[in-house]
Amino acid sequence: MEKDRMKKQWEFALEIDKEKYIGRQTWLSDGKRKENDAEHAWHAALMAVVFSEYANENIDVLKTVLMILIHDLVEIDSGDTYAYDEEGKKTQRQREERGADRIFGMLPEDQGKQFRALWEEFEEWKTPEARFAHVMDNLQPMMLNAATDGKSWTEHGIRLEQILNRNRHTSEGSEVLWEYAKENFIQPHLEQGHIKSPE
Amino acid sequence: MEKDRMKKQWEFALEIDKEKYIGRQTWLSDGKRKENDAEHAWHAALMAVVFSEYANENIDVLKTVLMILIHDLVEIDSGDTYAYDEEGKKTQRQREERGADRIFGMLPEDQGKQFRALWEEFEEWKTPEARFAHVMDNLQPMMLNAATDGKSWTEHGIRLEQILNRNRHTSEGSEVLWEYAKENFIQPHLEQGHIKSPE
Repeated sequence: MEKDRMKKQWEFALEIDKEKYIGRQTWLSDGKRKENDAEHAWHAALMAVVFSEYANENIDVLKTVLMILIHDLVEIDSGDTYAYDEEGKKTQRQREERGADRIFGMLPEDQGKQFRALWEEFEEWKTPEARFAHVMDNLQPMMLNAATDGKSWTEHGIRLEQILNRNRHTSEGSEVLWEYAKENFIQPHLEQGHIKSPE
Repeated sequence: MEKDRMKKQWEFALEIDKEKYIGRQTWLSDGKRKENDAEHAWHAALMAVVFSEYANENIDVLKTVLMILIHDLVEIDSGDTYAYDEEGKKTQRQREERGADRIFGMLPEDQGKQFRALWEEFEEWKTPEARFAHVMDNLQPMMLNAATDGKSWTEHGIRLEQILNRNRHTSEGSEVLWEYAKENFIQPHLEQGHIKSPE
């Protein structure tokens, strides 16, 4: 029984290696290649620790970090849906649900349920931890886009409205971090034309 | 003051992106490329959550996860020292200390001290969290080596004694995980000749 439990956990541990194959649209700070989901999750999780003092509400840091570490596991099956891919987003939820069923289903039942619930909580955006996890999920790539002369924004012809819409809940997780991001990441690149102005 | 503090944290957040450039000797499970430090840290941190029930002693999971998330940051400056590179290991500590000074020194003083202390704790191997973090740090690449027909072991001509020496403290963090690893990761690859037998 114990053996069967641990075997499932090792199978899960090996399976999640595939998150490193899932490419994102964000360029690394040296602009040489795009990052993958595992790198993004590590970066955003560590940033959550560094910036936790700026959450609007008190957060359970472990819960937030864990939420970020697992938030993209479903993409092993569904693939990454780029934040501004409107067609892809239509089927995103269904594709990700199937991924969640399979991947969290590899774990022993209690642990699979716990991870699944944490992923659902992230997706529902309703708790202080979920709100803050989304701040990190959004600002980590925004920081890198800003650091690479808006490389990913110009590549995809991103408009200001798209970024503001994508971040319509960011201030609910952290007002001060959102203010910083607007002033330091968005405004300069809007002025330089890396982000398209409203028409 | 608050502004200066947050600016330091953002500079740190951007600087650590460079951990993604630091290559390791472990092949990903598809054998197509080797992983980097950020991917390794994400994988080992998440595994620490999954396997925490098998720690010999009670551990603070957040502390353990944070320790793993930051344990390789110093390698941004010192580079990765391969576990079986005996020449490199002679200067490893000094190179890593200098990296720690600079990288943790970018943070506000209180946070820099906290992270530095956590890294020192990991290096000293003396607390339950440090012992368990090292189990994950060692078994994550061992799992991947086993999953890729011992690709990294054969590439470097690794002998059984080297693996056992590298893991001489692993059972102090988790006896059951070390037993599993010996039986499932080491033994089969010793039998298949991917790990060299004692001379």
